[in-house]
Amino acid sequence: MKSYRKELWFNTSTKMALINITPEIESCLKESGIKEGFALVNPMHITASVFINDDEPGLHQDYLEFLEKLAPYKPIDQYRHNDTGEDNAHAHIKRQIMGREVVVAVTKGELDFGPWEQIFYGEFDGQRRKRILVKIIGE
Amino acid sequence: MKSYRKELWFNTSTKMALINITPEIESCLKESGIKEGFALVNPMHITASVFINDDEPGLHQDYLEFLEKLAPYKPIDQYRHNDTGEDNAHAHIKRQIMGREVVVAVTKGELDFGPWEQIFYGEFDGQRRKRILVKIIGE
Amino acid sequence: MKSYRKELWFNTSTKMALINITPEIESCLKESGIKEGFALVNPMHITASVFINDDEPGLHQDYLEFLEKLAPYKPIDQYRHNDTGEDNAHAHIKRQIMGREVVVAVTKGELDFGPWEQIFYGEFDGQRRKRILVKIIGE
Repeated sequence: MKSYRKELWFNTSTKMALINITPEIESCLKESGIKEGFALVNPMHITASVFINDDEPGLHQDYLEFLEKLAPYKPIDQYRHNDTGEDNAHAHIKRQIMGREVVVAVTKGELDFGPWEQIFYGEFDGQRRKRILVKIIGE
Repeated sequence: MKSYRKELWFNTSTKMALINITPEIESCLKESGIKEGFALVNPMHITASVFINDDEPGLHQDYLEFLEKLAPYKPIDQYRHNDTGEDNAHAHIKRQIMGREVVVAVTKGELDFGPWEQIFYGEFDGQRRKRILVKIIGE
Repeated sequence: MKSYRKELWFNTSTKMALINITPEIESCLKESGIKEGFALVNPMHITASVFINDDEPGLHQDYLEFLEKLAPYKPIDQYRHNDTGEDNAHAHIKRQIMGREVVVAVTKGELDFGPWEQIFYGEFDGQRRKRILVKIIGE
């Protein structure tokens, strides 16, 4: 069994952002030389998500509006986590709704995707340096 | 390390449907000959889910009602994704709530499940041919 | 490829509970002897979650309040699943929101985590004996 590990670093210009990282993950997979196996992609942080969906700006706006309605940023004092001096309780909740990680099948050296599947880094408390972990195992 | 891959095709008779695919996944596992490892099951589409829960019709009705309340189909023009001519923004959101994929332990050649765990294909924009990917790795 | 399997048993004193199980998973990993691979952690039950987030009591209170608002326990007769004599439909829904399982990278014999990542067993219908499955594959 082979294994491969890489950290990808990001610093979003906005607090919330949905960024297509599929090309970076494909580069990792090529670098790994793994042909058959699984790729795991997850943020190393707890107010961000990695998820798979469509690269369509209208949909991304819908996601952010949906999440804001369910777990609004304000008022800050509605969350007990923010009693610690943080203001990001909403981002911890948004991350749980969108999920932490994806596991993707690797087949013949490619991400084994349907035609519209793309991998996104979803940041809900950005504007600081954060890491995505890519771990691939297989042969 | 061994690896196995199969596509399962479906065409639901209704737009939304929750279908127990555990027997199909068990057949895949037998066919793979893998005794110890992980099975990954995911739709190759972005308006559908694969998830694990109970095969109880009342619960399925509860899930669909819960999802419809959170991300209603209508009015269609409440979603920016639908400005592209689609009407399925709601289904992209429902899929995120229910999740994309499951990873299941494989032990002694069986899906390593508790007594009530069953695998479901959750379709939120059906009535067309769609694929579920099954990828199993191990020994 | 090596594989490792263990069941962890719990019996929560309250119906809902969020319990940090990171030390137990680290012990499993040490016991497995696996240095590079993936660890899968999931409940063997369908009204509980395993998820990764922050070990901060205020946040846990926020999660439970958020989940109760989205899928309240009462009134019991709002859910069709409860027509079967159960009262735990809400817990099946809460589990879907928080997710079933986590897959964690294993690197150099450690859980490959950022500084704040911790693994939690989220129970939404407890006060009875339940199992968490730990399956680790790799080398």
